[in-house]
Amino acid sequence: MTDLQTEVLASARRAKKAAADLAQRPRGAKDAALHAMADALLARTAEIVAANARDTERARAGGSPAGYVDRLTLTEQRVAAIAEALRQLAALPDPVGETVRGTVLPNGIELRQVRVPLGVVGIIYEARPNVTVDAAGICLKSGNAALLRGSSSAKESNTVLVAVMRDALAAAGFPADAVQLVPGDSHEAVGHLMAARGLVDVLIPRGGAALIRSVVDNARVPVIETGTGNCHVYVDASADLDTALRILINAKTQRYSVCNAAESLLVHADVADAFLPAALAALAEKGVTVHGDKRVAGYSAAVVPATEEDFAAEYESLDLSAAVVDSLDAAIDHVNAYNTGHTDVIVTRDLNAARAFQLRVDAAAVGVNVSTRFTDGGEFGFGAEIGISTQKTHARGPMGLPELTSTKYLMVGDGQIRE
Amino acid sequence: MTDLQTEVLASARRAKKAAADLAQRPRGAKDAALHAMADALLARTAEIVAANARDTERARAGGSPAGYVDRLTLTEQRVAAIAEALRQLAALPDPVGETVRGTVLPNGIELRQVRVPLGVVGIIYEARPNVTVDAAGICLKSGNAALLRGSSSAKESNTVLVAVMRDALAAAGFPADAVQLVPGDSHEAVGHLMAARGLVDVLIPRGGAALIRSVVDNARVPVIETGTGNCHVYVDASADLDTALRILINAKTQRYSVCNAAESLLVHADVADAFLPAALAALAEKGVTVHGDKRVAGYSAAVVPATEEDFAAEYESLDLSAAVVDSLDAAIDHVNAYNTGHTDVIVTRDLNAARAFQLRVDAAAVGVNVSTRFTDGGEFGFGAEIGISTQKTHARGPMGLPELTSTKYLMVGDGQIRE
Repeated sequence: MTDLQTEVLASARRAKKAAADLAQRPRGAKDAALHAMADALLARTAEIVAANARDTERARAGGSPAGYVDRLTLTEQRVAAIAEALRQLAALPDPVGETVRGTVLPNGIELRQVRVPLGVVGIIYEARPNVTVDAAGICLKSGNAALLRGSSSAKESNTVLVAVMRDALAAAGFPADAVQLVPGDSHEAVGHLMAARGLVDVLIPRGGAALIRSVVDNARVPVIETGTGNCHVYVDASADLDTALRILINAKTQRYSVCNAAESLLVHADVADAFLPAALAALAEKGVTVHGDKRVAGYSAAVVPATEEDFAAEYESLDLSAAVVDSLDAAIDHVNAYNTGHTDVIVTRDLNAARAFQLRVDAAAVGVNVSTRFTDGGEFGFGAEIGISTQKTHARGPMGLPELTSTKYLMVGDGQIRE
Repeated sequence: MTDLQTEVLASARRAKKAAADLAQRPRGAKDAALHAMADALLARTAEIVAANARDTERARAGGSPAGYVDRLTLTEQRVAAIAEALRQLAALPDPVGETVRGTVLPNGIELRQVRVPLGVVGIIYEARPNVTVDAAGICLKSGNAALLRGSSSAKESNTVLVAVMRDALAAAGFPADAVQLVPGDSHEAVGHLMAARGLVDVLIPRGGAALIRSVVDNARVPVIETGTGNCHVYVDASADLDTALRILINAKTQRYSVCNAAESLLVHADVADAFLPAALAALAEKGVTVHGDKRVAGYSAAVVPATEEDFAAEYESLDLSAAVVDSLDAAIDHVNAYNTGHTDVIVTRDLNAARAFQLRVDAAAVGVNVSTRFTDGGEFGFGAEIGISTQKTHARGPMGLPELTSTKYLMVGDGQIRE
């Protein structure tokens, strides 16, 4: 065992011990700790912003793009917003202890299934220091210890943010080890985390498809895949074309770097003539490059020929794949062949088409006459979100507080034995 | 890619196609198919029993123990019971389509979270041919395609059972590929199944700890761990000792080869004198070998010294580890250190002790004054059970039909876009 592995496992063991403590804390205590963390973040804003300045300086010097540096940046105002998010978490209901179902068995045993924390949650995430606090807060509220693995480009920021939260936890009578950064800087540390069976109850990788793929392939602890989104907008033969255009432009361009942005357009052949010329013009005006099949290309010289890879791509840029399909069935088959199980929508006035699309498309969220951009914990009213699951087990779609819990069956009897 | 891998992946692809069909079938059609399968099993009983006789003959010739051969054996009566179980499945509510939650968002979007099938479920199981039909039936009822990997000792039985079910499915207008045996006889086939990302939605290994460990360590598809049970009975200082003895004997001896049988006894020091002499005598009378710590050994010369391995063991035999503990806290710590997260019970008259034990013991089921043997889908009233999950994600405890589903968010609007 290497020193780093020893260190990672020791950290996970401390997290497990802290989790056993957290599982016993009632809502009031956890909410008070969240407010204490918010207070501490506000009180130590200068320290946080100074550490963050060292990160952003290094990123800029290393030639990181402006958008990247912006997401990395913490200002006084942003720290205040992060602290406020903790207070909003405190205001949410506590999922722990909720009775999911309960009954009295024929033999008189009272049986209840209740929500309990998962235990130790490992989160691997991108270079956004606000996630450090968000994730720690969501874990704390749901009674879980957090093992946080942020990007090395946010290292100075994360170190201070975690120190501030740990100090606040300790002052509130909580185990500081409820929130920890995974030791070490290397990818090796992530490997040790992924192998920590019996210590890490679930690992949530956020970020690029390559990271998620690597974690899923190598982890020996349960993993929840999040976030990759090759989302489709299908314009049906019976679509209201003004609605379709509004939804398409919103889904593709309102914010193109996020997982619920549209990446692919399908148009029923019957409305291609009526829809595509205006749609391609509107997309071009917004700076979108369309990668289309031959039929789409027939409507504009600006269309780039689409490859198989284009239809499978999650661009997260101002690019869009597009194809004309001959039927609703062909649209559904195309979506199921290429989607990542995130969000796909149909624009239609036909009830049967809407029903068939929602029944048969295999995705976390399937919409009728809405933008793909609504698949989001905030939009769904969850109040907090740790990520958007694109797998089918445990949780699917936006993951709020209940999705960070497990359950336990409680049996109470008076001496029942099995005959 | 080897021929076997090609064959396993082709089988999984056919299962995925069948699953897409199953997901659209309403309850009535699925129930009719279950009855058709039951009818076919009855009509072809002679063929099934003859194939099974070849399996049991081979097992006997190979020197398999009588209990093993018995579990492998199908008689006319047992086939009838298996068919009847399919009819009982048909009578259960269909989890698919159930609205888990639903609301109208502030922007007018109707949002519903509904249950959908997982898709393709792989099940690796022991030499009990009734599981072949049970598992196929539970998967069908919940809209999932089943990829079954039974024991090679039940090969002839399983081949005929699956052929009978496939014929019945086809006759009922269902895709026969909704039920398949995994091709090939070797462990290699299981390896290919475990690597079939994008084709197998979940893998459920049932059986020995070694098998489960190997699947968890190597699978690249989601896995639900089932069944290992190092279950504890803790006799608290305030226990009613008659109740404690009755529960202990039931939990250990009513059926010792199952996962919810007790494997470990903890006794509070205050009642050790009053409880252990009678308990050890009663256990000895039932043929139980007690592996005890020094304090337990002080009560009977028949006690075998317990090792660390004993406290961690799932014997599934007439063996029991035992220790005296000085406090409720020590009992809880011992349980959490050694249990497998299955079922642990406390015998007590003290409300605070009961609450603390149920809050702090980390297991799928935690009981007060009941036998460990009640953790079971049938006892819990689920009507059907695919296994008992000992992990925290997706499902924990007995898994019935709802546990074989995922969910999907359905959004319906009239042109909503995100501002």
